[in-house]
Amino acid sequence: MATSTKKVYQVAVVLYNGADVLDFAGPVEMLTHIYYNRDPQRLDHAFNVRIIAETSTVRAGDALTVTADMTLQEASKQLDDFDVMVVPGGPPNLLMGLVEKDSPEVQLIRNFATHASTDSGKERVALSVCTGALLLAGTGAVGGLRLTTHHMAYDLLRQVCKKAVNGAEAAQVVESNPQRRYVDGGINKAGVRVITAGGITCGLDASLYLAHLKVGDGPAEWAADLAEHEWKRATE
Amino acid sequence: MATSTKKVYQVAVVLYNGADVLDFAGPVEMLTHIYYNRDPQRLDHAFNVRIIAETSTVRAGDALTVTADMTLQEASKQLDDFDVMVVPGGPPNLLMGLVEKDSPEVQLIRNFATHASTDSGKERVALSVCTGALLLAGTGAVGGLRLTTHHMAYDLLRQVCKKAVNGAEAAQVVESNPQRRYVDGGINKAGVRVITAGGITCGLDASLYLAHLKVGDGPAEWAADLAEHEWKRATE
Repeated sequence: MATSTKKVYQVAVVLYNGADVLDFAGPVEMLTHIYYNRDPQRLDHAFNVRIIAETSTVRAGDALTVTADMTLQEASKQLDDFDVMVVPGGPPNLLMGLVEKDSPEVQLIRNFATHASTDSGKERVALSVCTGALLLAGTGAVGGLRLTTHHMAYDLLRQVCKKAVNGAEAAQVVESNPQRRYVDGGINKAGVRVITAGGITCGLDASLYLAHLKVGDGPAEWAADLAEHEWKRATE
Repeated sequence: MATSTKKVYQVAVVLYNGADVLDFAGPVEMLTHIYYNRDPQRLDHAFNVRIIAETSTVRAGDALTVTADMTLQEASKQLDDFDVMVVPGGPPNLLMGLVEKDSPEVQLIRNFATHASTDSGKERVALSVCTGALLLAGTGAVGGLRLTTHHMAYDLLRQVCKKAVNGAEAAQVVESNPQRRYVDGGINKAGVRVITAGGITCGLDASLYLAHLKVGDGPAEWAADLAEHEWKRATE
């Protein structure tokens, strides 16, 4: 049987204590069910997901203890290997604290989001879910782009965007709604695509959109059907 | 400030290697965001969720390594402490294997689902998500009830139900649909309520239904709004 030559996209999910459970579990679920080939004898995964965190285990949502596959330090040394970075959110105060102290997570995200892939055939994607947009904006790598976040965090995101750009072109915060559960902000100045999802479950729809961008509509629709999820595509 | 006297429902989430990520992460997300009181200074959680597994860590969906809060053996000794048992699903073949060998997970679920609470004021609930219904049916504790499961597993569930009852009244397998993403099967012969959700994301809606049963509509609606999730209530 021929070996698949299709590209497997490498995904870093950046976790930290207090991250919201579904903010990262939604993308993990959807992306791990995107296949080039669904022959049960030879499932060809399109995305390989790894959990990245500062500590070896992370307590998410004060309910789930998750083991990291790789430390932030390890990931930062092999950042070229990653095509996608998923940035989940959590309680706004926690996230604002991480932004204010320019935490190691924010630094890793900045490192990823300010360097295009060295391979011209690849396009990096930074995907935030919910208040994860605060971390993404805190990197200062989203100037001029359209972003969204959880509905309770629009003003906080505007604050972070203003602060992060230091007078340069600010990002534009748009509110999510049932027709716009995620926003593809396009490519930032470094050449990295920035997708931001609204609150919590919007991450499911944004992940399907990412899969559609990278692999096509068929595998994304199939994963949505498998999950008995009505994919709510952004139409504006 | 007065201490809350509201009941905190104790939830056991039964995990095992190969469990689907969103099958358990969905209920964990929703139930941990159900509050009696949402004052940020004094959040009163209505559900306390613990992860129960045979081994100290579990690999879910071949993507997420989760630490158990309690072993199956520990949980079985204090089963009276639990009000709710959540049974996630996974690949059908894996689940059928667990049923056929009457695995420790199936035994724990049977132990829970065949004993009503010793406290007459409490009503136990067994909630399966997706193919988790196969494990629940494998206990033989669902005779005469209506059940649903993932859309690819209806026939398997019928098989398990037939085998499990040994000639007694079989459970009735009903297909899920957008108006019936979960089924409240009512109370089994032991006095335990059995709720079964359809595939993967149906667990979000079933968890909100459980919250509504135990705590009321307001907190369930609030958690759905927080998650930017349109709660799809079963209407048939």
